[in-house]
Amino acid sequence: LRVKGFKGGAVEAGIKYQDRKDLGLIYSDYPARVAGVFTRNEIKAAPVLLDMERLGSGNGLARAIVVNSGNANACTGHRGLIDAEETCGLVADRLGLVEEDILVCSTGVIGEPLPMDKIREAVPTLVEAISYEGLEDVARAIMTTDTVHKMAFRTLDIDGCPVSLAGMAKGAGMIGPNMGPPQATMLSFVLTDANVEGQWWQDILTRAVDESFNRIVVDGDTSTNDTVLALANGCAANSEIAGGGAGILLEKALHDLLMDLALQIVRDAEGGTKCVHIHVKGARDETEADVIARTIANSPLVKTAFFGEDPNWGRILAAAGRSGFALDDNRLELRIGDIVLVSKGGYAGKDNEAKAAEIMKEREFSIVLDLGLGDGSASIVTSDLSVEYVRINADYRT
Amino acid sequence: LRVKGFKGGAVEAGIKYQDRKDLGLIYSDYPARVAGVFTRNEIKAAPVLLDMERLGSGNGLARAIVVNSGNANACTGHRGLIDAEETCGLVADRLGLVEEDILVCSTGVIGEPLPMDKIREAVPTLVEAISYEGLEDVARAIMTTDTVHKMAFRTLDIDGCPVSLAGMAKGAGMIGPNMGPPQATMLSFVLTDANVEGQWWQDILTRAVDESFNRIVVDGDTSTNDTVLALANGCAANSEIAGGGAGILLEKALHDLLMDLALQIVRDAEGGTKCVHIHVKGARDETEADVIARTIANSPLVKTAFFGEDPNWGRILAAAGRSGFALDDNRLELRIGDIVLVSKGGYAGKDNEAKAAEIMKEREFSIVLDLGLGDGSASIVTSDLSVEYVRINADYRT
Repeated sequence: LRVKGFKGGAVEAGIKYQDRKDLGLIYSDYPARVAGVFTRNEIKAAPVLLDMERLGSGNGLARAIVVNSGNANACTGHRGLIDAEETCGLVADRLGLVEEDILVCSTGVIGEPLPMDKIREAVPTLVEAISYEGLEDVARAIMTTDTVHKMAFRTLDIDGCPVSLAGMAKGAGMIGPNMGPPQATMLSFVLTDANVEGQWWQDILTRAVDESFNRIVVDGDTSTNDTVLALANGCAANSEIAGGGAGILLEKALHDLLMDLALQIVRDAEGGTKCVHIHVKGARDETEADVIARTIANSPLVKTAFFGEDPNWGRILAAAGRSGFALDDNRLELRIGDIVLVSKGGYAGKDNEAKAAEIMKEREFSIVLDLGLGDGSASIVTSDLSVEYVRINADYRT
Repeated sequence: LRVKGFKGGAVEAGIKYQDRKDLGLIYSDYPARVAGVFTRNEIKAAPVLLDMERLGSGNGLARAIVVNSGNANACTGHRGLIDAEETCGLVADRLGLVEEDILVCSTGVIGEPLPMDKIREAVPTLVEAISYEGLEDVARAIMTTDTVHKMAFRTLDIDGCPVSLAGMAKGAGMIGPNMGPPQATMLSFVLTDANVEGQWWQDILTRAVDESFNRIVVDGDTSTNDTVLALANGCAANSEIAGGGAGILLEKALHDLLMDLALQIVRDAEGGTKCVHIHVKGARDETEADVIARTIANSPLVKTAFFGEDPNWGRILAAAGRSGFALDDNRLELRIGDIVLVSKGGYAGKDNEAKAAEIMKEREFSIVLDLGLGDGSASIVTSDLSVEYVRINADYRT
C-alpha cells in the first residue's frame, strides 16, 4: 500500500497505551493540496481548531500530518492550543519545514493535557521512522478502542497516468454524524498522488464525506475531534484535475474509498456484533427519509433487538413513528433482507418472522422501510447495542 | 390508599405472564370528569386511538378504565381497534354501563393481537374482583419490566373538604418524552374525589404532565401506548373547582403526585443503577436549555459513564456541544453534586474529579451545567445505561 511521494511511520511515545505505537507521521515529499472536513460539535478539540485555521488562512498546501492516540487534546483550553502548535513546531524543525506546513490530529481521552514531555522525546525518533512502506504503521498508531486498523486503496487511470489513493481511518465509538457538511465522524486521512485543483478537491471531499462517513452511526455521539484530511501531492504528474471526465473518475474513486473505510468503522463498532443497512424509502422527501433512518439507527430498543437477533418490527415502526413526521400506518411496508414483516401496515405472520430471525443471525443484513408516501429515500448504516458496548464505555478511562 | 368512590381490582388472565395478575379494572361509583394526555408517536396503539376518540367526542365523563399488561395492542391494524372496543363492551355489559363509559389501556409486546378468548373468559371474574381496597392490585397488574409497582398519594383540604388524590404508574423502558404537550411517556392513572370543572381539569393535567413525565428519560424511545388518564368523581363534595385558590392547591398536589410517580419510573428504569438529575442553566432561553439537557440525558456515552461511576466530564461537554447551539467554551461551568469539575471552561483538577467519583457511587445525584450565556434553564431526570438494560431488551420477547 504505497502512494507516490508519501511516507509514513509511527513510534511508541507512551502517551497512554503501553507496548504499542501511538504517535504517527504522514509526510509528503512535495507540497500537497490539502482539503479537510471537521466536526460540527460546538466543543472542538485544539488540533481541530488549529487545522481549521491553517486550512482557512494558508496557501492550501501541507507537507505532513502528525497524529497521536490516547489523548484527544479536547477541553484543554488555551494550553491545548499551545500544545498542538508546539507538536507541529517540533515536527517542522526536524523536517526542515515551517510550522504552518504541518497539520495535527489527536484522538483519545477528553479533558487531559497532552503529555508534552513524552511527545518532545518521541518526535526525533518519529521523524527517523518514516518510510514509503510505513503508512500502515500510522493506521495502527491511531487506533483507540478499534480492534483492527482500517485502510483502503484504489487505483485508476487518468488520461494514461496511473493514479493511486490510499485511505486510513480510526473509529469505533463516539460515532454519530450530524446532518450538514462539512463534517466528519472520526479520523481519516486520504493520500493521493493525483494533481488536483485546490477548491475542487475540497468540494469533492465534502460531498464524498457527506455520502459516506456522515451516513454511519455507532452511538450517535458526535465527537469533538472528528477530522478528515485529504492530501494530493501531484506526483502522478497528470494534468491538473478540476472537474470534467477525469474529475468524475477521481470523485468516484474517492467516494468508494471513503465508503469502504466508513463500513470498516461500523463493522468494528465498539462491542458491535451486527452491521445493519437501514434503507428508508417512499418518504415525501429525502430529509424526511434521512431523519427517520437516523431515528431508527439511533434507537436503543432497535439496536438491542439487533443484538438479540430479534425481528422486533414493532420497535422499528415505533422509532419511525417518533421521528416527527406524519405517517400512514396502512401504507407501511417493512422488510428484513428480502422477508416482508409488515405489508400495508399489517403483520405478515409468524413464518416470515422466523425467516427474518434467521437473516438476523448474519453479521450484516439490511432493513427496508417503505413509507408509501412519495419518492424520498435515504440510507444509514448502524451497529447493534451490545452488552460489550456498555462494558467498554463504562470502563474506558480506568 | 383509598379515594372516595373508587374501586379497583385485578385478575390473572394469562395474556402473556403466568402466575401474576395482568388484567386490571378501575371503577368509579359515580360518573367522573376525565382528562387525558396521549403519546405523540405517529404510530398509536389501538387503545390510545379509542380513548382519544372517546375524550374528544364524549360528554367528558367516564366510569371505568380496563387495562392489561403483556400485550400493547399496537401495530395490530383494524383488528386491534375491534378488540379494544370489544374489551370495553365486555366490561360495560358486566357493570351495567354503556361501552362509551369505559376507557381502555394496554402495555406490553407490540404487534401481536390481543388474545380475546382469554379476556372474554377473565372479564366476569375481574368485575367481581373490584373493591375499595383493590387499587394496589391494579398498580401491580400493569407492570411489565417494572420491578416494583408505583403508587403515590396526596391529601389536601379544599375549603374544609378533605380531598384525596391517588396515582399509579408503570414504566421502566421505552421511556422517552417528546417536547410538546399533550403527551405522556408511560401508563399512569390519577384518581381523585375532587369536584372539578372538565376543561380546567384537562388543562392542569396537560401542564402537570409536561413538567413531570415529559421531563424523564430512560432510553428516549417514545412509546406507541403512552397514556395518562385522570378521573375526578366529585365524591369529596367540594364546590366545583375551575381555578382560583382551590385550583392552585389542587394543581400543586397533582403536580407533586405526578413528579413522585415520574421519579419512581426513573428509579426503576430497566437495568438502571442510577437516577441522575440534569440541570442546564445559563442558556439563552428555556428551549435551548431543554434541548441540551435532553441531549446529555440521551447520550449513550454519558449514560455508560454514569453506570461506570466515571466523572467523565468531557463526554458531558461533548454531548452539549452536539446539541446544535453555539456555546462559548470559556464560560462553561460543570458540577457533579457540589463538586466543580469545569470552571470557565477549564478543568478543575484530579482532586475534584476524585470527589465527584465518590458522589457518583450514590444511587441518585445531580449534574449542573452552566452555559454562562443567559437566564434559560431546564431539568431532565435520566437513568444510566447498564449491561442489564441491554440484556433485558435483547431478550424481551423470548
